[in-house]
Amino acid sequence: MRIAITIAAMMLWCGQNTLHAQQEMSGHEFDPGKHATFVSDRPDGKFVSSRAIAHNLMQQHPPRLQYTGKMDSAQFAAWREDVAATMTRLMKHPVIKDMAEPRLIESHKRDGYRIERWESYPFPDAVVPYLVLIPDGVDKSHPAPGILCIPGWGQTKELLSGETSIDLGSSSINETNNAMARYYVKEGYVAVAVDNPACGEPDDLERLSGYGGAEYATFARQLLELDWSYLGYASYVDKVILDWMKTQPYMRNDRLVVSGFSFGTEPLMAIGAMDPTIFAFVYNDFLCTTRERALTMTMPDKRGRRPWPNDISHLIPGFLCEFDFPDIVAALAPRPVICTEGGMDRDFSSVHHAFQTAGAPAAFTSHHYAMYADESKRDVNLNKMPEGVDLATFFRLANVDPPHHYFKSEHVLPWLRKILTE
Amino acid sequence: MRIAITIAAMMLWCGQNTLHAQQEMSGHEFDPGKHATFVSDRPDGKFVSSRAIAHNLMQQHPPRLQYTGKMDSAQFAAWREDVAATMTRLMKHPVIKDMAEPRLIESHKRDGYRIERWESYPFPDAVVPYLVLIPDGVDKSHPAPGILCIPGWGQTKELLSGETSIDLGSSSINETNNAMARYYVKEGYVAVAVDNPACGEPDDLERLSGYGGAEYATFARQLLELDWSYLGYASYVDKVILDWMKTQPYMRNDRLVVSGFSFGTEPLMAIGAMDPTIFAFVYNDFLCTTRERALTMTMPDKRGRRPWPNDISHLIPGFLCEFDFPDIVAALAPRPVICTEGGMDRDFSSVHHAFQTAGAPAAFTSHHYAMYADESKRDVNLNKMPEGVDLATFFRLANVDPPHHYFKSEHVLPWLRKILTE
Repeated sequence: MRIAITIAAMMLWCGQNTLHAQQEMSGHEFDPGKHATFVSDRPDGKFVSSRAIAHNLMQQHPPRLQYTGKMDSAQFAAWREDVAATMTRLMKHPVIKDMAEPRLIESHKRDGYRIERWESYPFPDAVVPYLVLIPDGVDKSHPAPGILCIPGWGQTKELLSGETSIDLGSSSINETNNAMARYYVKEGYVAVAVDNPACGEPDDLERLSGYGGAEYATFARQLLELDWSYLGYASYVDKVILDWMKTQPYMRNDRLVVSGFSFGTEPLMAIGAMDPTIFAFVYNDFLCTTRERALTMTMPDKRGRRPWPNDISHLIPGFLCEFDFPDIVAALAPRPVICTEGGMDRDFSSVHHAFQTAGAPAAFTSHHYAMYADESKRDVNLNKMPEGVDLATFFRLANVDPPHHYFKSEHVLPWLRKILTE
Repeated sequence: MRIAITIAAMMLWCGQNTLHAQQEMSGHEFDPGKHATFVSDRPDGKFVSSRAIAHNLMQQHPPRLQYTGKMDSAQFAAWREDVAATMTRLMKHPVIKDMAEPRLIESHKRDGYRIERWESYPFPDAVVPYLVLIPDGVDKSHPAPGILCIPGWGQTKELLSGETSIDLGSSSINETNNAMARYYVKEGYVAVAVDNPACGEPDDLERLSGYGGAEYATFARQLLELDWSYLGYASYVDKVILDWMKTQPYMRNDRLVVSGFSFGTEPLMAIGAMDPTIFAFVYNDFLCTTRERALTMTMPDKRGRRPWPNDISHLIPGFLCEFDFPDIVAALAPRPVICTEGGMDRDFSSVHHAFQTAGAPAAFTSHHYAMYADESKRDVNLNKMPEGVDLATFFRLANVDPPHHYFKSEHVLPWLRKILTE
């Protein structure tokens, strides 16, 4: 009965019954390809479609801090300061008085290193657990570089650490090519692995229920109602842990690295732009122009619905009015950055240009996916993504090979050896 | 092949394969009822769940402009000014230079009135069509009150006007109990019917494809990326039409009414708070405390997912930090308001108190759903909605009878006769 009422309520509140009654069917078969872009069918060229009008509004408002390449080193430094200040304004990190210090909860031996479970307390009523992997022989007399490891969508700190369980006592080793933190500790670095909010240990009831997903969106929605955002929260709790890393004598706080995989590259960029003390960055995803992706992925499905590239855990209101991801990576110059999974050549030459302007041309390294490594496989002169593409076409033009999206240890580890021993 | 790649990409980018591999099943059956609220299982009472932490953050931040009832008439006037200024800040209406005047497109005779199709041009490249229903005998020498009619979710201006088609030439009459504008014109008022953005004529491709829905959310998402919102856009395009109404000599601009059904009550409240020249308001929905609804509807489903009351077309970042719907209705005092579909007695006594403070106790009228009209059917002393309810329970405690959600002409028309002829 209750369910019956709920469904009735949903139908009424969604009013689809009403709209169904009003649908003016087109009669003939709908061909999505014929409507891949927004085209006015009016003599005056104006648009009636709200979605087309919003699309045009976004077109008319390019990011204020887009990296143009038309800067000398002084102008570049001023622009970078603006990027930092703007990121700080957008991330809205709270200032918590008398925040409790992180505490060590447990420590376990592994082959060649120990794994520690810590808790941070970013809010008086909140606990954010994280894992610390410390190579044997590393201590305050023999400090090592420290690497903050941020997972991708659906990944956890345990996956990054090569563990099978949150309960480290009963956990066993789970080697995967995404075990970023375990790769790092084996290299002799201290690896600090965190969860992304609302997934893994900080989830709500998803593990308890046995549901195979993570509810990022409802958590993000609650933060957005509070005028905050998922990335604002994620970058804040990550920053609390990064600031703790700076105080640990067995980590070299002049050699702190942030390493992000996929979804984890977003907090990497937010923290990176705000915190000049970070030494280097591992960006393990394709270099994506999110705004361009939203503006060009307009191919509708059979029902006439155009997609949006991602869910609201990626939404920071106003963010794309200020900058896009390549601009933020450019603003990390002159600090060492490696991008491991390609992107558009246009964006890489722009970032390379920024590093030259910052006087550190060698500090930026980028690799394409193997299938796009050969220039002949890429449209190296593609300057603007065409409108009306679907996801697969966008990925192809952005030189992305989705099935081979994983932590590129083969590129990252040699690069880290080089920059951390120079 | 392209589809195959897309699905593979989606799976990888969503990473559920990864998470599945890590799920720690609870073994025993998950019982949603045992997890209806957020409870810490830690001795220190702290929370690890991100969702619980966000929930607590919202609990700790009640709306700044909540109507407390502890105001004298001077304080009330100052508070109302703050509500108006805050709503103006949140709605972010653009200022368009040299906006083109609305144009009459066509006019058709109906029984006892004529229906006109107009176009407004709220942006240089944008067209927002609307319908104007004018009773026979109404002209500049015999002006009538004008009522702006805003539809509910999935409804259109044609439905409100009792028309079957956007093409008025081939349209026929479609009497329904939701034909708000047709009820009004039959009463001798000028009715102006608008669409909500992204539904009906301003949709994207949904009617063309024959899809029975409206994509509010992707349109809302694009606006949110631009630091705007669905309600900001909707209230702006509605306000452009309302301002046009003020200039039409056959409408009494001292007797302009805004009438909103369901979803349409949101632009009603936004415009109402911002524009003191509106004479009266027809609020045809239950009086909903959106923030309380988000905080109490925490009953998870079998997969452990707690719902969110609505989609992002209802999201205005920061809105609920300032006020909730009953506060805004209270701020409409002393202008006449009728609420037609109940709500919590707590909220009605609060609004009644506001109208008393404003010196107009008789200007606020409210009706409950028939099934809750008898006080014995309501918990009149319910002061706080309990946490952990599902939608059906929330509706029951808020005295909502979803199957009977329709335009309450039986309450509205007599009330309008009274206030418009006094």
